[in-house]
Amino acid sequence: MTESTRSRALAHVGSVELFTPTPDESLEFFTAILAMDRVGQRGDSVFLHAWDDYERFTVKLTAAATSGVGRTYLRAAGPDSLSGLVDRLEATGRAGRWVDDELGIGAAYLVDDPDGHEIGLYWETERYVAPPELRPALKNQAARFPGRGANVRRLDHVNYLAADIAPNAGFLADGLGAMLTEQIATVDGPPAAVWFTLSDKTYDLVYSADWTGSHGRLHHVAFATDTREDILRAADVCLENGIHIETGPHKHAIQQTFFLYVWEPGGNRIELCNAGARLMLAPDWPAVTWTPEERAKGQAWGLQTIPTFHTHGTPPVDVGE
Amino acid sequence: MTESTRSRALAHVGSVELFTPTPDESLEFFTAILAMDRVGQRGDSVFLHAWDDYERFTVKLTAAATSGVGRTYLRAAGPDSLSGLVDRLEATGRAGRWVDDELGIGAAYLVDDPDGHEIGLYWETERYVAPPELRPALKNQAARFPGRGANVRRLDHVNYLAADIAPNAGFLADGLGAMLTEQIATVDGPPAAVWFTLSDKTYDLVYSADWTGSHGRLHHVAFATDTREDILRAADVCLENGIHIETGPHKHAIQQTFFLYVWEPGGNRIELCNAGARLMLAPDWPAVTWTPEERAKGQAWGLQTIPTFHTHGTPPVDVGE
Amino acid sequence: MTESTRSRALAHVGSVELFTPTPDESLEFFTAILAMDRVGQRGDSVFLHAWDDYERFTVKLTAAATSGVGRTYLRAAGPDSLSGLVDRLEATGRAGRWVDDELGIGAAYLVDDPDGHEIGLYWETERYVAPPELRPALKNQAARFPGRGANVRRLDHVNYLAADIAPNAGFLADGLGAMLTEQIATVDGPPAAVWFTLSDKTYDLVYSADWTGSHGRLHHVAFATDTREDILRAADVCLENGIHIETGPHKHAIQQTFFLYVWEPGGNRIELCNAGARLMLAPDWPAVTWTPEERAKGQAWGLQTIPTFHTHGTPPVDVGE
Amino acid sequence: MTESTRSRALAHVGSVELFTPTPDESLEFFTAILAMDRVGQRGDSVFLHAWDDYERFTVKLTAAATSGVGRTYLRAAGPDSLSGLVDRLEATGRAGRWVDDELGIGAAYLVDDPDGHEIGLYWETERYVAPPELRPALKNQAARFPGRGANVRRLDHVNYLAADIAPNAGFLADGLGAMLTEQIATVDGPPAAVWFTLSDKTYDLVYSADWTGSHGRLHHVAFATDTREDILRAADVCLENGIHIETGPHKHAIQQTFFLYVWEPGGNRIELCNAGARLMLAPDWPAVTWTPEERAKGQAWGLQTIPTFHTHGTPPVDVGE
Repeated sequence: MTESTRSRALAHVGSVELFTPTPDESLEFFTAILAMDRVGQRGDSVFLHAWDDYERFTVKLTAAATSGVGRTYLRAAGPDSLSGLVDRLEATGRAGRWVDDELGIGAAYLVDDPDGHEIGLYWETERYVAPPELRPALKNQAARFPGRGANVRRLDHVNYLAADIAPNAGFLADGLGAMLTEQIATVDGPPAAVWFTLSDKTYDLVYSADWTGSHGRLHHVAFATDTREDILRAADVCLENGIHIETGPHKHAIQQTFFLYVWEPGGNRIELCNAGARLMLAPDWPAVTWTPEERAKGQAWGLQTIPTFHTHGTPPVDVGE
Repeated sequence: MTESTRSRALAHVGSVELFTPTPDESLEFFTAILAMDRVGQRGDSVFLHAWDDYERFTVKLTAAATSGVGRTYLRAAGPDSLSGLVDRLEATGRAGRWVDDELGIGAAYLVDDPDGHEIGLYWETERYVAPPELRPALKNQAARFPGRGANVRRLDHVNYLAADIAPNAGFLADGLGAMLTEQIATVDGPPAAVWFTLSDKTYDLVYSADWTGSHGRLHHVAFATDTREDILRAADVCLENGIHIETGPHKHAIQQTFFLYVWEPGGNRIELCNAGARLMLAPDWPAVTWTPEERAKGQAWGLQTIPTFHTHGTPPVDVGE
Repeated sequence: MTESTRSRALAHVGSVELFTPTPDESLEFFTAILAMDRVGQRGDSVFLHAWDDYERFTVKLTAAATSGVGRTYLRAAGPDSLSGLVDRLEATGRAGRWVDDELGIGAAYLVDDPDGHEIGLYWETERYVAPPELRPALKNQAARFPGRGANVRRLDHVNYLAADIAPNAGFLADGLGAMLTEQIATVDGPPAAVWFTLSDKTYDLVYSADWTGSHGRLHHVAFATDTREDILRAADVCLENGIHIETGPHKHAIQQTFFLYVWEPGGNRIELCNAGARLMLAPDWPAVTWTPEERAKGQAWGLQTIPTFHTHGTPPVDVGE
Repeated sequence: MTESTRSRALAHVGSVELFTPTPDESLEFFTAILAMDRVGQRGDSVFLHAWDDYERFTVKLTAAATSGVGRTYLRAAGPDSLSGLVDRLEATGRAGRWVDDELGIGAAYLVDDPDGHEIGLYWETERYVAPPELRPALKNQAARFPGRGANVRRLDHVNYLAADIAPNAGFLADGLGAMLTEQIATVDGPPAAVWFTLSDKTYDLVYSADWTGSHGRLHHVAFATDTREDILRAADVCLENGIHIETGPHKHAIQQTFFLYVWEPGGNRIELCNAGARLMLAPDWPAVTWTPEERAKGQAWGLQTIPTFHTHGTPPVDVGE
């Protein structure tokens, strides 16, 4: 896993499904605080769109008995890339199945990562068309700038928890052709966390060790804002609206992301993030490995990581968390 | 040129050479104002490195009789991509030649675009290693954050002037596999300007019409800052240091870039730019075409484009500019 | 007028009345774009409160046949200061009259400046108490942070037009004890504009020459935002909402204010401003005088002042403006 | 102490003296990181000027056996205000003495606060005149914008430690006419900290309880930056330069200041602060009192106050700190 390779068969993370036991409050969070708009509803799910997402939806919010992450959709770089990926997965014993059941998405090939998170690979997509009241002033933007709350521009990344990091990292690298960019080493075991990119962003998919040994859980889903100031303002907005601020705003040492972590009312951890002008332009980036000693220094500007960051995941599990 | 395709054979713009008739003053601009560091010298050229460039150098500043742009280096996505590109160029009658003469770069295949700008395609590169006094506190960063002037993080894009846009756009699309993302249409002629991307940035290479009919000239070279605030501060710094501010800070309607244009002492136009969280994630982006009527509205917030933006290029030509 | 003196008898600008021929649209502008809240209504007037104003209201928006400025309220530094001011005004032949007719304000002494703008001096004021739904999370703040539009924090200054600057400047300096901080000189006449402060802000009240020779008109009313980023975002919000952006965002050379000028739907010019950490701490500041040559350089970063900035005032007058 | 009154006899904090056992390293910190310039030297003291201070110097840095705070200078609002203050102090048994020994300052009346911090009251001051190489482009600014490090604009406030808060608060309110704006209450004792203003800033002088029972010590000296972004950048700069970041960037609940606390090499705690557009315009502000329960919530966005913030002061004392 130290040598990075990338197939570019996948273009980017398209959308993610979140489960919530408090659908009304969660919906209010995504629309009023994050500034997304409702673009559809099916059964227990509401579809939400961030203002500069070119596709039909960004988040599928599904009422459920508990919190957690559902399907994550990854868009292929082209139709041939998608079929190539499927061949590769099937050849390596990781076969999935085709479905065609999602709003705004054509046929999707569903596979589970080794930890049990469901991934949907797709090419065909419905381009978002803003309704008249959300039509942007500038035609190179998906919807009008909302001017409310945190104004998140787009989905940025998904950070899963996994009981065993190594096979999941292998799935991303070998199965999906993602490139490892940074990782946290442990003294004598597998990495404690791995950051992979599909794109020119420095990461799109992350695995952190699930200390409970559970499967299929979520650490957080992140949305990108245009500026760090948007994130500072989001902290004010969360404070005023009673949203639990877990930690931040501050800057990660790893990946140097400027961050704010909050818990949406359903319990899922949400990150607002900004990367400045940092991109992963190198096609042959040697992954950066952080040692436990380096990690002990805390975040970039010295903030110690708070305990819940290592213990809270969704859905919650009953191990004294 | 309306249908976008991308081969991803090229990864990103690597570096660019600028000519200057005032080498000392230009060097002072790039080091004190833009916050680059000197990393080498050969003959009449000084090599400069922006603080988060993973390669050996970002700008090659060459003393010359006049201003303008020299070689632009584009890094391939891999060794096979590079040989594939060369085959493609030679098959389409746009053959170049191999050289191996540049600091920090392996073998490069040189081709001229139809307008005469020299392009160097390469794969092998020397990774930048910071000297002790510039070693960064965070190991995932190339050099330490300078904390001076405009603190530009990396090269962003090159905007050429071309007497005839169409063949150059064709060269980028068909020869290099770049994807057209936005363009300015004219009433009944070829586009007045075209924006192409190699990466997930919304553009890397741009052609604007050269009203003088000259060849091989430069409109501007742009460097990315982490924040819009960095650009506002850069305007203060340029003001204090007598650097000519041509226009901005403001926001482009096209590509929505937050910009500041200044003229470095040698006469070349330099842009400082910030894109926020805007990226070109869609692999099948339908190019946005701006009409003359839309252009007449000025920049995003209504600023009228100043006349020199349409007339000044480097090197200067004697047509009453 | 070159020697500055200040009595500190007045503490700050309290509120201002604006007339609008389009009350519904103007109300929408002040609530949705500037993020003020309605706090009262009387007759044709709606009272609006900016989120950190400690007093009952910030703007009184009055439906009228045309646009323009009504009464400006200035709060005294104390009850004795107010009576001292009244004595001073009456002693210098500028007697006014006491009224007690305003929402949230006790007895006010009304005087007209020489150009005819109505000024109300008062001490007693009703402290703003947020209703439950607007109660702030932090008790040292008047109302909760709105998280919408431009999020203006408070009223900043009022800039009047006056047919003859000198007597109005004299009224501020001698009548009200304000301190001149900056001014624009003309070649051989009276100043073209004067900036006066009552507080530690660098200006609170401004007069600009009214080229039409009219009386009692308004150049603009300004509201302060916490950051320059708020102003950049406000420009996006105005763009999306069809609000006319006259000029900016940019930085004034005079007073160094970061600004955005828009016209509210009723026609009145509104400035959003940010001063950074710049304050007028010196009690003996020698006024800065800008020459016509210095003014010709444009704004701080070189932007040329647009013609309407010199011609548009409210109410409009029929002289070919 | 619950009723606030203000005489406005003092205008603002003028400058402060800091002692350092590591004068060379401290000087480097103030010049390279905070971006001050040397403006004089006398004996073991170097005088430093922040770029928009209208007076001769901002900080007097004095080599000494240990760290701590020396004289704090407060500028009077006028010559009569100064003599009135002196009369008041002498009448209340708090007599001091006149000296005339400081660079750039005329006669100063020295008094000790009850805890033993030396305060110098003065009116006559030498206006800072920038040398040619530091002359600003805009004439309403003291020196040119440095464009390096944290770019602090001016001194903001001094926060003393005091063994017994009450008499020192009484000294500020009754002796100097300062106005209490916020305070931290204890369950059944005197306040744990008090914030007083002389100006329209929300605070200029602060006392925090010295848990060691020592006298004359310093909690921190604060400098204002124009933006929060300047503070975020300062954190990067401190990180790169090995400056100890104690806590932040974050936002205080009390006074809502956006802050970064670092320890300069001599050990003194330095705050970089930004207040946005928050000002103390009300002349009759009822002081805000924070209860221990409210304090337990941490800073504005939930950050818990780190232990050293309550234990570290300068000079250090030998009580197991």
